[in-house]
Amino acid sequence: MRMGESVEWGLHCCVTLGWLADRGPVSIRRLAAWFDLPQEYLKKRLQPLARAGILGSSPGVHGGWSLARSPDEITVMDVVTALEGAVEPFRCAEIRRRGVGARGAGPEFDRPCGVTTVMRRAELAWRRELAAHTIAELMASPESAERTRRNYERMIASVVE
Amino acid sequence: MRMGESVEWGLHCCVTLGWLADRGPVSIRRLAAWFDLPQEYLKKRLQPLARAGILGSSPGVHGGWSLARSPDEITVMDVVTALEGAVEPFRCAEIRRRGVGARGAGPEFDRPCGVTTVMRRAELAWRRELAAHTIAELMASPESAERTRRNYERMIASVVE
Repeated sequence: MRMGESVEWGLHCCVTLGWLADRGPVSIRRLAAWFDLPQEYLKKRLQPLARAGILGSSPGVHGGWSLARSPDEITVMDVVTALEGAVEPFRCAEIRRRGVGARGAGPEFDRPCGVTTVMRRAELAWRRELAAHTIAELMASPESAERTRRNYERMIASVVE
Repeated sequence: MRMGESVEWGLHCCVTLGWLADRGPVSIRRLAAWFDLPQEYLKKRLQPLARAGILGSSPGVHGGWSLARSPDEITVMDVVTALEGAVEPFRCAEIRRRGVGARGAGPEFDRPCGVTTVMRRAELAWRRELAAHTIAELMASPESAERTRRNYERMIASVVE
């Protein structure tokens, strides 16, 4: 049971774009170099975040990626849902309805069984925790923010576009 | 992000074996017929539960599977962990340490980053919820328990071993 690597990529890109918000959009080339990730692959992974209204991308020489809304209005859950879909790790195939054991069942099968109920409750606890934290909170590390801005200035100064 | 189907199989088998505890061990053939599951495949899926001390299996004509400890001492988390391993759905590849963005980082990288911290907190909330519920609780449906015992009696009476 694993989330895709794009969850880590997407969250770190959101945080970094939050720190660099006043520098304008960041090109995909720079964003890929930032984390040493494959450029085309990263672009593909960020597109669901654009479709979900979390990131915006603008075309052109000075175009690139930026947060599409305020970082305190983007929860970790928003990013995970955009990248992984509506997460329900437990798959209920209703095996209780099958085979010899199901014979003569009454209205009890109209309700979800205890197994599914507990699993859904746990998934809700997980989602609630992710929904309680925003990109703005993840940005609240002054030393990382400062390093990011410093490195970005150097990157811009040293690389010919 | 999905758990394997063996989680549903394993939990329902535990609950059913709990209801049938006073009938002695249940053969793998009967357990497979119970949920209309493939016998050899089910056996393979239950073996991790035996290794984890959740189920016991005894050999011989009257042998079979049973709970290895009291159902109020088996949590849903125990079963999930036995089948899926120590669940950490979020995979942190430490991409923050890579590429241009990581240059000049100080002791901040000694601590887990905010992204990983939030993801681990959510996983903890999920695990806590699963650890708060036992097989005994899932067994607390008198109508399902009664149907199970009734169908099992019929199964024994009608099938020549």
